[in-house]
Amino acid sequence: MDAPANIAAAFDLIGEPWQPHRLATVNDHDVKVARLAGEFVWHAHPDSDELFLVVDGRLTLQLRDRDVELGANDVFVVPAGVEHRPRAEGEALVVMVERAGTVNTGDNPGEWTTEVRELPLG
Amino acid sequence: MDAPANIAAAFDLIGEPWQPHRLATVNDHDVKVARLAGEFVWHAHPDSDELFLVVDGRLTLQLRDRDVELGANDVFVVPAGVEHRPRAEGEALVVMVERAGTVNTGDNPGEWTTEVRELPLG
Repeated sequence: MDAPANIAAAFDLIGEPWQPHRLATVNDHDVKVARLAGEFVWHAHPDSDELFLVVDGRLTLQLRDRDVELGANDVFVVPAGVEHRPRAEGEALVVMVERAGTVNTGDNPGEWTTEVRELPLG
Repeated sequence: MDAPANIAAAFDLIGEPWQPHRLATVNDHDVKVARLAGEFVWHAHPDSDELFLVVDGRLTLQLRDRDVELGANDVFVVPAGVEHRPRAEGEALVVMVERAGTVNTGDNPGEWTTEVRELPLG
Protein backbone atom coordinates (compact mmCIF):
# COMPACT_ATOMS: atom_id res chain seq x y z
CA MET A 1 0.00 0.00 0.00
CA ASP A 2 1.34 3.42 -0.90
CA ALA A 3 -0.85 5.55 1.33
CA PRO A 4 -2.60 4.93 4.64
CA ALA A 5 -6.18 3.64 4.52
CA ASN A 6 -8.63 5.28 6.90
CA ILE A 7 -11.19 2.99 8.49
CA ALA A 8 -13.83 5.72 8.86
CA ALA A 9 -13.41 6.72 5.22
CA ALA A 10 -13.70 3.08 4.22
CA PHE A 11 -17.06 2.68 5.94
CA ASP A 12 -18.28 5.80 4.14
CA LEU A 13 -17.58 4.01 0.85
CA ILE A 14 -19.61 0.94 1.74
CA GLY A 15 -23.33 0.88 1.10
CA GLU A 16 -24.96 -2.49 1.54
CA PRO A 17 -24.51 -4.66 4.61
CA TRP A 18 -22.71 -8.02 4.64
CA GLN A 19 -20.32 -6.97 1.85
CA PRO A 20 -16.73 -7.42 3.05
CA HIS A 21 -14.25 -4.98 1.52
CA ARG A 22 -10.49 -5.46 1.73
CA LEU A 23 -8.77 -2.68 3.68
CA ALA A 24 -5.28 -4.18 3.86
CA THR A 25 -3.30 -7.38 3.50
CA VAL A 26 -0.77 -8.66 6.05
CA ASN A 27 1.21 -11.60 4.74
CA ASP A 28 -1.45 -14.20 3.81
CA HIS A 29 -4.17 -12.54 5.90
CA ASP A 30 -6.75 -9.96 4.90
CA VAL A 31 -8.10 -7.09 6.98
CA LYS A 32 -11.65 -6.39 5.83
CA VAL A 33 -14.35 -3.92 6.75
CA ALA A 34 -18.10 -4.48 6.52
CA ARG A 35 -21.39 -3.06 7.65
CA LEU A 36 -23.46 -5.71 9.41
CA ALA A 37 -27.20 -5.27 9.85
CA GLY A 38 -29.79 -7.86 10.77
CA GLU A 39 -29.05 -11.56 11.02
CA PHE A 40 -26.62 -13.52 8.85
CA VAL A 41 -26.55 -17.27 8.20
CA TRP A 42 -25.03 -19.97 10.36
CA HIS A 43 -21.62 -20.95 9.01
CA ALA A 44 -18.09 -21.95 9.94
CA HIS A 45 -14.73 -21.29 8.30
CA PRO A 46 -12.90 -24.63 8.21
CA ASP A 47 -9.53 -23.11 7.34
CA SER A 48 -9.31 -19.86 9.29
CA ASP A 49 -9.95 -18.21 12.58
CA GLU A 50 -12.00 -15.03 12.15
CA LEU A 51 -11.39 -11.91 14.22
CA PHE A 52 -14.17 -9.37 14.70
CA LEU A 53 -13.46 -5.84 15.92
CA VAL A 54 -16.52 -3.66 16.40
CA VAL A 55 -15.77 -0.06 15.48
CA ASP A 56 -19.31 1.24 15.99
CA GLY A 57 -22.64 -0.24 17.02
CA ARG A 58 -23.31 -3.55 18.70
CA LEU A 59 -22.80 -7.07 17.36
CA THR A 60 -23.98 -10.41 18.68
CA LEU A 61 -21.94 -13.43 17.64
CA GLN A 62 -24.26 -16.36 18.11
CA LEU A 63 -22.37 -19.59 18.82
CA ARG A 64 -24.14 -22.92 19.19
CA ASP A 65 -23.79 -22.86 22.96
CA ARG A 66 -23.88 -19.13 23.80
CA ASP A 67 -24.05 -15.59 22.50
CA VAL A 68 -21.03 -13.27 22.57
CA GLU A 69 -21.99 -9.60 22.82
CA LEU A 70 -19.63 -7.02 21.36
CA GLY A 71 -19.69 -3.23 21.59
CA ALA A 72 -17.34 -0.57 20.31
CA ASN A 73 -13.64 -1.48 20.64
CA ASP A 74 -14.44 -5.09 21.50
CA VAL A 75 -12.49 -7.87 19.79
CA PHE A 76 -13.44 -11.53 19.56
CA VAL A 77 -11.94 -14.41 17.60
CA VAL A 78 -14.15 -17.23 16.34
CA PRO A 79 -11.85 -20.24 15.99
CA ALA A 80 -11.64 -22.12 12.69
CA GLY A 81 -14.41 -24.68 12.38
CA VAL A 82 -16.69 -23.11 14.99
CA GLU A 83 -20.23 -22.38 13.80
CA HIS A 84 -21.37 -18.83 14.30
CA ARG A 85 -24.10 -16.45 13.17
CA PRO A 86 -23.53 -12.70 13.43
CA ARG A 87 -26.52 -10.51 14.27
CA ALA A 88 -26.71 -6.75 14.60
CA GLU A 89 -29.69 -4.85 15.89
CA GLY A 90 -29.40 -1.64 13.95
CA GLU A 91 -26.03 -1.56 12.25
CA ALA A 92 -22.55 -2.54 13.31
CA LEU A 93 -19.36 -1.33 11.63
CA VAL A 94 -16.87 -4.17 11.85
CA VAL A 95 -13.23 -4.90 11.01
CA MET A 96 -12.38 -8.55 10.34
CA VAL A 97 -9.03 -10.33 10.13
CA GLU A 98 -8.83 -13.76 8.54
CA ARG A 99 -6.78 -15.82 6.12
CA ALA A 100 -6.96 -14.50 2.56
CA GLY A 101 -9.46 -16.48 0.52
CA THR A 102 -11.85 -16.98 3.43
CA VAL A 103 -15.41 -16.81 2.07
CA ASN A 104 -17.95 -14.80 4.04
CA THR A 105 -20.47 -17.65 4.30
CA GLY A 106 -17.82 -20.32 4.95
CA ASP A 107 -19.18 -23.84 4.66
CA ASN A 108 -22.75 -22.65 4.03
CA PRO A 109 -22.82 -21.02 0.57
CA GLY A 110 -26.00 -19.36 -0.62
CA GLU A 111 -27.56 -16.05 -1.49
CA TRP A 112 -25.26 -14.13 0.89
CA THR A 113 -22.05 -15.57 -0.52
CA THR A 114 -19.84 -12.91 -2.05
CA GLU A 115 -16.26 -12.28 -3.03
CA VAL A 116 -14.34 -9.76 -1.00
CA ARG A 117 -14.51 -6.39 -2.72
CA GLU A 118 -11.82 -3.81 -3.22
CA LEU A 119 -12.09 -0.30 -1.79
CA PRO A 120 -11.38 2.70 -4.00
CA LEU A 121 -9.03 4.07 -1.34
CA GLY A 122 -5.61 5.68 -1.61
CA MET B 1 -10.56 -16.60 23.84
CA ASP B 2 -13.57 -17.04 26.07
CA ALA B 3 -14.62 -13.40 26.40
CA PRO B 4 -14.22 -10.35 24.19
CA ALA B 5 -11.13 -8.19 24.71
CA ASN B 6 -11.69 -4.45 24.74
CA ILE B 7 -9.02 -2.34 23.08
CA ALA B 8 -9.61 0.70 25.28
CA ALA B 9 -9.40 -1.44 28.42
CA ALA B 10 -6.20 -3.00 27.08
CA PHE B 11 -4.52 0.39 26.71
CA ASP B 12 -5.51 1.21 30.28
CA LEU B 13 -3.51 -1.81 31.40
CA ILE B 14 -0.33 -0.77 29.61
CA GLY B 15 2.10 1.58 31.28
CA GLU B 16 5.40 1.97 29.48
CA PRO B 17 5.71 2.77 25.81
CA TRP B 18 7.15 0.37 23.18
CA GLN B 19 5.89 -2.71 25.05
CA PRO B 20 3.72 -4.80 22.72
CA HIS B 21 0.96 -6.75 24.46
CA ARG B 22 -0.96 -9.56 22.79
CA LEU B 23 -4.68 -8.80 22.45
CA ALA B 24 -5.68 -11.75 20.27
CA THR B 25 -4.35 -14.46 17.98
CA VAL B 26 -5.73 -15.22 14.50
CA ASN B 27 -4.27 -18.41 13.07
CA ASP B 28 -0.50 -17.83 13.11
CA HIS B 29 -0.80 -14.04 13.46
CA ASP B 30 -0.88 -11.90 16.57
CA VAL B 31 -2.90 -8.75 17.19
CA LYS B 32 -0.94 -6.59 19.61
CA VAL B 33 -1.48 -3.25 21.30
CA ALA B 34 1.20 -0.80 22.38
CA ARG B 35 1.70 2.78 23.49
CA LEU B 36 4.29 4.49 21.31
CA ALA B 37 6.01 7.66 22.49
CA GLY B 38 9.14 9.28 21.12
CA GLU B 39 11.36 7.69 18.51
CA PHE B 40 12.09 3.98 18.15
CA VAL B 41 15.05 2.36 16.37
CA TRP B 42 15.42 1.64 12.67
CA HIS B 43 14.60 -2.00 11.96
CA ALA B 44 12.96 -4.38 9.52
CA HIS B 45 11.06 -7.63 9.99
CA PRO B 46 12.48 -10.10 7.49
CA ASP B 47 9.67 -12.63 7.91
CA SER B 48 6.51 -10.59 8.32
CA ASP B 49 4.56 -7.63 7.09
CA GLU B 50 3.55 -5.35 9.97
CA LEU B 51 0.20 -3.57 10.10
CA PHE B 52 -0.21 -0.43 12.18
CA LEU B 53 -3.65 0.90 13.13
CA VAL B 54 -3.60 4.15 15.08
CA VAL B 55 -6.40 4.21 17.65
CA ASP B 56 -5.46 7.54 19.22
CA GLY B 57 -2.75 10.15 18.69
CA ARG B 58 -0.46 10.58 15.72
CA LEU B 59 2.29 8.28 14.45
CA THR B 60 5.00 8.85 11.88
CA LEU B 61 6.38 5.77 10.18
CA GLN B 62 9.74 6.81 8.86
CA LEU B 63 10.79 4.81 5.83
CA ARG B 64 14.17 5.26 4.16
CA ASP B 65 12.65 7.27 1.30
CA ARG B 66 9.68 9.02 2.92
CA ASP B 67 7.59 9.51 6.04
CA VAL B 68 4.10 8.05 6.36
CA GLU B 69 1.87 10.09 8.68
CA LEU B 70 -0.94 8.31 10.50
CA GLY B 71 -3.78 9.70 12.58
CA ALA B 72 -6.71 8.07 14.33
CA ASN B 73 -8.31 5.23 12.31
CA ASP B 74 -5.45 5.18 9.80
CA VAL B 75 -3.99 1.83 8.77
CA PHE B 76 -0.65 1.23 7.07
CA VAL B 77 1.25 -1.97 6.32
CA VAL B 78 5.06 -2.00 6.31
CA PRO B 79 6.05 -4.87 4.01
CA ALA B 80 8.42 -7.57 5.26
CA GLY B 81 12.02 -6.53 4.89
CA VAL B 82 11.33 -2.80 4.66
CA GLU B 83 13.26 -0.66 7.13
CA HIS B 84 11.14 1.63 9.26
CA ARG B 85 11.36 3.74 12.40
CA PRO B 86 8.16 4.67 14.23
CA ARG B 87 8.03 8.08 15.90
CA ALA B 88 5.26 9.64 17.96
CA GLU B 89 5.18 13.21 19.12
CA GLY B 90 3.27 12.89 22.35
CA GLU B 91 1.80 9.41 22.53
CA ALA B 92 0.11 7.15 20.00
CA LEU B 93 -2.08 4.18 20.90
CA VAL B 94 -1.51 1.56 18.25
CA VAL B 95 -2.83 -1.87 17.23
CA MET B 96 -0.41 -4.07 15.27
CA VAL B 97 -1.00 -7.24 13.27
CA GLU B 98 1.94 -9.43 12.33
CA ARG B 99 3.08 -13.03 12.21
CA ALA B 100 3.40 -14.59 15.67
CA GLY B 101 7.00 -14.58 16.82
CA THR B 102 7.81 -11.25 15.18
CA VAL B 103 10.22 -9.38 17.45
CA ASN B 104 9.57 -5.69 18.05
CA THR B 105 13.06 -4.58 17.00
CA GLY B 106 13.25 -7.00 14.07
CA ASP B 107 16.76 -7.29 12.65
CA ASN B 108 18.19 -4.66 14.99
CA PRO B 109 18.16 -6.13 18.51
CA GLY B 110 19.21 -3.96 21.44
CA GLU B 111 17.97 -2.26 24.55
CA TRP B 112 14.41 -1.93 23.18
CA THR B 113 14.06 -5.59 22.29
CA THR B 114 11.29 -7.27 24.27
CA GLU B 115 9.06 -10.28 24.19
CA VAL B 116 5.39 -9.71 23.53
CA ARG B 117 3.58 -9.50 26.85
CA GLU B 118 0.25 -10.98 27.86
CA LEU B 119 -2.65 -8.81 28.97
CA PRO B 120 -4.54 -9.68 32.14
CA LEU B 121 -7.83 -9.42 30.22
CA GLY B 122 -10.95 -11.56 30.22
